[in-house]
Amino acid sequence: MLKTIKKVAVFTSGGDSPGMNAGIRSVVRTCAFHDIECYGIYRGYQGMIEGDFEKMDARSVKGIINKGGTILKSARSKEFRTKEGRKKAYDALCKAGIDAFVVIGGDGSFTGAMIFNQEFDFPVMGIPGTIDNDIFGTTHTLGYDTALNTAVEAIDKIRDTASSHNRLFFIEVMGRDVGHIALNVGVGAGAEEILIPEEDLGLDRLLDSLRRSKASGKSSSVVVVAEGDKIGKNVFELADYVEENMAEYEVRVSVLGHMQRGGSPSCFDRVLASRMGVKAVESLIVGKSNYMVGLKNDIMDLTPFDQAVKGKSKINMELIRVSDIMTI
Amino acid sequence: MLKTIKKVAVFTSGGDSPGMNAGIRSVVRTCAFHDIECYGIYRGYQGMIEGDFEKMDARSVKGIINKGGTILKSARSKEFRTKEGRKKAYDALCKAGIDAFVVIGGDGSFTGAMIFNQEFDFPVMGIPGTIDNDIFGTTHTLGYDTALNTAVEAIDKIRDTASSHNRLFFIEVMGRDVGHIALNVGVGAGAEEILIPEEDLGLDRLLDSLRRSKASGKSSSVVVVAEGDKIGKNVFELADYVEENMAEYEVRVSVLGHMQRGGSPSCFDRVLASRMGVKAVESLIVGKSNYMVGLKNDIMDLTPFDQAVKGKSKINMELIRVSDIMTI
Amino acid sequence: MLKTIKKVAVFTSGGDSPGMNAGIRSVVRTCAFHDIECYGIYRGYQGMIEGDFEKMDARSVKGIINKGGTILKSARSKEFRTKEGRKKAYDALCKAGIDAFVVIGGDGSFTGAMIFNQEFDFPVMGIPGTIDNDIFGTTHTLGYDTALNTAVEAIDKIRDTASSHNRLFFIEVMGRDVGHIALNVGVGAGAEEILIPEEDLGLDRLLDSLRRSKASGKSSSVVVVAEGDKIGKNVFELADYVEENMAEYEVRVSVLGHMQRGGSPSCFDRVLASRMGVKAVESLIVGKSNYMVGLKNDIMDLTPFDQAVKGKSKINMELIRVSDIMTI
Amino acid sequence: MLKTIKKVAVFTSGGDSPGMNAGIRSVVRTCAFHDIECYGIYRGYQGMIEGDFEKMDARSVKGIINKGGTILKSARSKEFRTKEGRKKAYDALCKAGIDAFVVIGGDGSFTGAMIFNQEFDFPVMGIPGTIDNDIFGTTHTLGYDTALNTAVEAIDKIRDTASSHNRLFFIEVMGRDVGHIALNVGVGAGAEEILIPEEDLGLDRLLDSLRRSKASGKSSSVVVVAEGDKIGKNVFELADYVEENMAEYEVRVSVLGHMQRGGSPSCFDRVLASRMGVKAVESLIVGKSNYMVGLKNDIMDLTPFDQAVKGKSKINMELIRVSDIMTI
Repeated sequence: MLKTIKKVAVFTSGGDSPGMNAGIRSVVRTCAFHDIECYGIYRGYQGMIEGDFEKMDARSVKGIINKGGTILKSARSKEFRTKEGRKKAYDALCKAGIDAFVVIGGDGSFTGAMIFNQEFDFPVMGIPGTIDNDIFGTTHTLGYDTALNTAVEAIDKIRDTASSHNRLFFIEVMGRDVGHIALNVGVGAGAEEILIPEEDLGLDRLLDSLRRSKASGKSSSVVVVAEGDKIGKNVFELADYVEENMAEYEVRVSVLGHMQRGGSPSCFDRVLASRMGVKAVESLIVGKSNYMVGLKNDIMDLTPFDQAVKGKSKINMELIRVSDIMTI
Repeated sequence: MLKTIKKVAVFTSGGDSPGMNAGIRSVVRTCAFHDIECYGIYRGYQGMIEGDFEKMDARSVKGIINKGGTILKSARSKEFRTKEGRKKAYDALCKAGIDAFVVIGGDGSFTGAMIFNQEFDFPVMGIPGTIDNDIFGTTHTLGYDTALNTAVEAIDKIRDTASSHNRLFFIEVMGRDVGHIALNVGVGAGAEEILIPEEDLGLDRLLDSLRRSKASGKSSSVVVVAEGDKIGKNVFELADYVEENMAEYEVRVSVLGHMQRGGSPSCFDRVLASRMGVKAVESLIVGKSNYMVGLKNDIMDLTPFDQAVKGKSKINMELIRVSDIMTI
Repeated sequence: MLKTIKKVAVFTSGGDSPGMNAGIRSVVRTCAFHDIECYGIYRGYQGMIEGDFEKMDARSVKGIINKGGTILKSARSKEFRTKEGRKKAYDALCKAGIDAFVVIGGDGSFTGAMIFNQEFDFPVMGIPGTIDNDIFGTTHTLGYDTALNTAVEAIDKIRDTASSHNRLFFIEVMGRDVGHIALNVGVGAGAEEILIPEEDLGLDRLLDSLRRSKASGKSSSVVVVAEGDKIGKNVFELADYVEENMAEYEVRVSVLGHMQRGGSPSCFDRVLASRMGVKAVESLIVGKSNYMVGLKNDIMDLTPFDQAVKGKSKINMELIRVSDIMTI
Repeated sequence: MLKTIKKVAVFTSGGDSPGMNAGIRSVVRTCAFHDIECYGIYRGYQGMIEGDFEKMDARSVKGIINKGGTILKSARSKEFRTKEGRKKAYDALCKAGIDAFVVIGGDGSFTGAMIFNQEFDFPVMGIPGTIDNDIFGTTHTLGYDTALNTAVEAIDKIRDTASSHNRLFFIEVMGRDVGHIALNVGVGAGAEEILIPEEDLGLDRLLDSLRRSKASGKSSSVVVVAEGDKIGKNVFELADYVEENMAEYEVRVSVLGHMQRGGSPSCFDRVLASRMGVKAVESLIVGKSNYMVGLKNDIMDLTPFDQAVKGKSKINMELIRVSDIMTI
């Protein structure tokens, strides 16, 4: 028989991303809509262990849909990786009468939820919140679209100065394991080359490409590099290497860094967060557990946690080809 | 036997939208990539009639991927609606040796292309460029994503002042026939009510909703109204009606207007434009004609013009439900 | 003998403007720095009458320096215009043990403070917060610089579409009595004509200018109009008049409206707010009262309230000349 | 007797800054207004030597007032530092019939102009264009205001993520010799500490301040560091030092870098550029030479080049005090 859900908790976990607040708001309001009590947990799993809960109603989340960061804070918890830590967390949830939770985070956060569910048969649901878009089971994670815009706008500014001075810029964007950000930002910013973790084009190809670019009359160039690019050199070494081998270029480096994680979410991310929060809570209500909500073909969908954390979010090969054509 | 395409023309037609320049750039560079000559036509079909062409190579389109508007200008042409006008246009294209064209625009522009294709068996391909997202055969038109962000950012600013003063704002956004912009912007901006052309919720329901909103402790409210909302009153009349019936509110109106058409395109729109340009030119190369390129399930796809112009771009009913839940 | 100030209240009054929160933060933190208790008053003079006070310490104002609007809300109070209302306000302040207040607002708010000071010999200090920059005794009011950027960015977007279509846009910006916003925004946005309350250039001159503009090869034009322009027609009538008399133009209107009041303050406004808050509190501490703090020649300065409210904030005639030259 | 100026050249030199295009536009249009021919010189002094000139009229500069970078490109010229190089430049100017020039740049560019004027008695005028605001004789250089906003907006985003995670961020902003950017950005972004080249507060004071900040209940902190801060350690070493000595903080670094040089200029910078261009050209017309135009007390003013390059642009000590109070 279906156990009725009466109290749902929501929290954010792992690296923060724009849209997390909109996600919290949606979970809280969907609970209110269905007359379910809702609690916010501060600082992710660590706050769960410590019982750092706060009751939230529809008005608790006003004015946050457009705010970056997360009002519930985020943290990584070593203690939750231990059986003892998870037991403490379970006890704290029980003590507060909480029946189920929604975790907004990435791979690691979902793995934690999955284990917790196995150990205590506790209903859990996940919302993918990370700028990297590296999660299987959704075409878009919360914050990804915003991060693309943030990076592209920053590179637009850098290109102003690059083209005033005939310079070559190496610009590092986020994305340690997958090249979604680099590839889309590279195409969006009109980069001459894009280096991603999925492909090793080799340094020779890079030099060739930059030489062709120069020969074709381009006076300045931008190379977008993912943090974890396959060439394996960090962006400063890359810049040095190119400067040594191409005297004709004045080379500069810019690491966009943490600003990509912040900022007011785009309309897309706000709407996505609103949809995901509804789907997460209503899935719990109908008795589902251990799933991640996601966007597939523009429709809300569920993916079992074990698939979400094992699966690979693949790069769009068509887009790599588009990128090659655009840089002619 | 397949006629080889040697010279392709590209132009923008109808209302402009962010991403049109990125689309032009993509068409031009894809032509260059395939060693096809490319011509830009100024001022849409009118410029075609007048032979207002300019040869473009890969470097002609540098520095435009991030610019709003269209470097080729746009216009509506009465003359092209006549058989004589179209004959002139055909002669001008032939004289310049142009084999095929790519039109970036909306419904009306595609109808023109379709008729032109029927009359002269001239290869044509379309890229959907309009902020309204009202075209069948693509989940996203060029400029739509940018317009959503522009509108949401403007409403964020208005909400600052609304909530400082406990005011009720009626904000009109674009979208004469379909409510895509209003619905997404409304959810993204956290609007209390959203009025769209597809639904007549009635004035009573609006008043009820605002009263509940007030009763639930909200001190300020934002109502997003599509230009062509079903209630049929324009936004100023609506505001007057509410002010007369709800003395507790100080009501203000803001019409966002044409700023929604401009601005630097979002990363999404730049990438979409790049993909669409490649698809359009390469479809012409393989002998296709009379199609619109579009995005379906995140994949580039073709839709015959007659379906594109006859079909309806439907509102997402799930999102209407999400909107209702969010405004509790 | 100097009465020692022990408890200072701060509030915002009249129309809100970006930077008000940064001003509140500065007053609160300067009080904390000098070991003075600080109270926030909600909803301006009306909240003062109702005793709607809240004790604030340095941490109460964290995270607000970059937020538009005012966390203390603003309101207009009819009751405070009566002697009885002001007596109630005085009693409420006395009951709470408040010794002095800082009001952030415009002309009307300062007049209220001045009368209150005369009636009850109560120490008061003013910070000019309004986007209109219409206050004597400071070269910049809080929010003015931000509003200029907001308006210019909106017009940049409109110009994208104007120049794609060879259109003429009439754009109304705020500024009922003085043309500071219109003049600066007009120059900053490269407007062809600027209509301000201080000057009646006449409709004939406007038509002449637009005709010259067209003749000189400009394909699109933007005319910036202050709300209270001297020609006296509202922006829609102006547009109709021009369209009737210049068939060659397709005319459009955009009223920027309330979005100009909101948004995250510019760096300039945040710094100005910080400086003004310090000056206001430290002036009260040394026994001054009945002054407005202001920026003169980049230095913090005091102007007696009676001069601030009577004086005129004059338009920069050099800038009118610059505008004429730029539109050649 | 006054030699009549008939042909004026304009160019940008040294590091680029937002507003340079608006400055070029103003010089070109002011020339047109006074019926003086105007030439643009590409790539600064190097282009002058090479005779890389282009005639510009009022329409040549349309649509650039809001663009970052410089359409005339910029460069540093070693050759111009030699007498032979300058002679070549003089010959090229004479050959083109150019009577006078306006240089938009910084200290180094003005020194070049001053020497050139001495050697050839050639009329020269300077417009201060640099984001660093490090030039004597003007309260604001072109681009400074824009760079402040760019940096503050980037730090706002970083703070979102900092406060979600209780992190300490060291953020490096531009300003090698003077701390104007760091000081204003630090106050504007609500930084807990600001390290500038003018002051050596010492590492101990920094640790003390961060400890107090933590003790006072702040969960995250931002330290803004000028490139050339007096402590002398670069921002990465600083971060390491603090992390070693304050285990309670997770420390991160962000170098804002070249994005601060680009972007669309603020309204202030556009207006300033327009005023400076008018003043520069009209000063040449009345026979002045060897001056830099500048803003003093909101009025356009002239400063002899030798004073401009020798003088020091001093930090505002009041603002340092404001900063101390704000971080309580």
